[in-house]
Amino acid sequence: MKTFKFELIHQSSKSRARVGRIHTPHGIIDTPNFVAVGTNGSLKALDSKMAEEIGLQLMFCNTYHLMLQPGTDVVKKAGGLHTFINRNKPIITDSGGFQVFSLAYGGVKDELKSKGKKKSDNGVLKISEEGVLFRSYRNGDKVLLTPETSIQAQKDLGADIIIPFDELPPYHIDKQALRKSLDRTHRWEKRSLDYHLKNPQQQAMYSVIHGGIDPDMRKESCEYLTSLPFDGHAIGGSLGKNHAQMFDMLANVTPMLPDDKPNHLLGIGDLTSLEPCIKLGIDTFDSSHPTRCARHGLLFSFNGTIKIMNSAQKMNMEAPDSNCECYTCTHYSMAYLHHLFKAKEMTGYTLATIHNLHFMVQLMAQYRQRILDDDL
Amino acid sequence: MKTFKFELIHQSSKSRARVGRIHTPHGIIDTPNFVAVGTNGSLKALDSKMAEEIGLQLMFCNTYHLMLQPGTDVVKKAGGLHTFINRNKPIITDSGGFQVFSLAYGGVKDELKSKGKKKSDNGVLKISEEGVLFRSYRNGDKVLLTPETSIQAQKDLGADIIIPFDELPPYHIDKQALRKSLDRTHRWEKRSLDYHLKNPQQQAMYSVIHGGIDPDMRKESCEYLTSLPFDGHAIGGSLGKNHAQMFDMLANVTPMLPDDKPNHLLGIGDLTSLEPCIKLGIDTFDSSHPTRCARHGLLFSFNGTIKIMNSAQKMNMEAPDSNCECYTCTHYSMAYLHHLFKAKEMTGYTLATIHNLHFMVQLMAQYRQRILDDDL
Repeated sequence: MKTFKFELIHQSSKSRARVGRIHTPHGIIDTPNFVAVGTNGSLKALDSKMAEEIGLQLMFCNTYHLMLQPGTDVVKKAGGLHTFINRNKPIITDSGGFQVFSLAYGGVKDELKSKGKKKSDNGVLKISEEGVLFRSYRNGDKVLLTPETSIQAQKDLGADIIIPFDELPPYHIDKQALRKSLDRTHRWEKRSLDYHLKNPQQQAMYSVIHGGIDPDMRKESCEYLTSLPFDGHAIGGSLGKNHAQMFDMLANVTPMLPDDKPNHLLGIGDLTSLEPCIKLGIDTFDSSHPTRCARHGLLFSFNGTIKIMNSAQKMNMEAPDSNCECYTCTHYSMAYLHHLFKAKEMTGYTLATIHNLHFMVQLMAQYRQRILDDDL
Repeated sequence: MKTFKFELIHQSSKSRARVGRIHTPHGIIDTPNFVAVGTNGSLKALDSKMAEEIGLQLMFCNTYHLMLQPGTDVVKKAGGLHTFINRNKPIITDSGGFQVFSLAYGGVKDELKSKGKKKSDNGVLKISEEGVLFRSYRNGDKVLLTPETSIQAQKDLGADIIIPFDELPPYHIDKQALRKSLDRTHRWEKRSLDYHLKNPQQQAMYSVIHGGIDPDMRKESCEYLTSLPFDGHAIGGSLGKNHAQMFDMLANVTPMLPDDKPNHLLGIGDLTSLEPCIKLGIDTFDSSHPTRCARHGLLFSFNGTIKIMNSAQKMNMEAPDSNCECYTCTHYSMAYLHHLFKAKEMTGYTLATIHNLHFMVQLMAQYRQRILDDDL
């Protein structure tokens, strides 16, 4: 029995934006939606009950981190991530590929600074057709990440949605190298899917569309990966060096993806990106941006971002956002939040995180309503 | 109308231990009880709703810290600490004396190491009959703490129970210097009380019994301070260099205190001290020990302390304490807590803190029951 299903509720008449519903073994994800990132199986500064109260429908956990700490053996023994972290709502895990290749090549930002010349020397021992051999930053153990070991790890973690093992090529890459990387990524995704389908465990698997910012290779990736029985499609690889490049790439890619499967955009969730990407047909976004902003004292609101540490907030006895109904805004003043941040009290990070995640939930609900109203 | 009242419920037939009930404008404190310390107006890693769910009846906030950050003007504008931190249960504040003299003389532990020779040079500019002039560690401002400014600050903070300004003499002090300090502390406490009584604001004020480990001076302090209209008595000053010295001092002091007023022991709340001190007639204890232990990965239980980081806990899928009904133990495994601490996730500190404070609430309820049963 297959419990994963994407239900298309409404297609906007104005754009590719659509409202949908992803059914999973742990419940429904209304789309478009934001996916909160809890790298280590914990949304930073929140426990799972708080996350549930905020109404976050899907949580993103990182296989790379969980493999190294606590180890998938521990999570498996617990009965999977849902039990281990006490979350009875949907979870998605990635393959570990992104992290291990970020170690190898550095992140896009580092890379743009170093013009792609910097090769990091931090743990990656060997990249081959089989996979990637790297050294654990925790205990120095050698770890081999391959399509098969990544998917087995994700089987042990037991998320509702899993991701095939792929290569994250650097942004600065010549066409020939990108071509080699794309071909290998496709072989790895096929191996991942084959391994997954031997024992689906009610998990769904999304492909990861690659091809960097090369329109032809993106097209080729869409054609190949949509020909395989994936349950949805994530857009990954290098998304470009700025918003414009990313939107161009998406405008090219999303029309090539099937309407009856969900589209996920990997690692993007900044406020500027959301609306344009939703209009281009993206259904879900994972990002640590809102929670990281919260811990850095930036509160989101429909009237712009509020800086908690701004000295004008010291005496502000109003709620951080008077229009907000989150736990933080209904229980505490801006002055108290300002004080907690000044005093470096952890509770400040918790309260700010609650607010920003609540904002994301409201924002996505607004987008869904606008789509239903054909207003997006 | 005076809303503060101490009600004696039961006097043990076996010791000075008693069960009582302190009535305050923000509700009842059952005694003996533990008072959680939220220095900056926040129990570290918890928000006030969690603290309330745990059942903590009295919270201790530090005037010294709150004066400097956010400033009593901010708290006053908010309508007092209860509103500012969103707590509708009783709060006690201290005078700031302890902190400012710790700066001047160093803490007892530092002092024992340096044999009292070390004079800290960290902000204290002048100690005189008027009070203490010091420099704010936050902004360099000169701040004058006197009996009157301390009590005015505590009026602005608006706690249910306040503490007069006193001098904390060093442990290593000769009799003549202790005598001078005691006399000045008595004058300062009298000035504090006089200032308080001009405008009681429904606040109660406890004296602070001084005299170090000199039995005669402790006696003199009891005699003088119990002759004044304080609402209760706190035992402060140097409590000795070890448990035995503290218990001896308390055995001398508590019989000299009136039965119809509550007795508080300042800054003590380690598990070893509680039972002997309760038997000597102490009603309330404030200490950051349980919350600090939690953040350092030590969980309290009735079967001894549990080390979260112990490698044996990695695979332990049981609750941290299977007999405990706290939120943490009913929702998470020891393995998850171990993982959160290993991964340095803030949520780990929150969950451990919830457990230890819940333990303290249960432990104190057990003591009360044993006293009611004449079993202590």
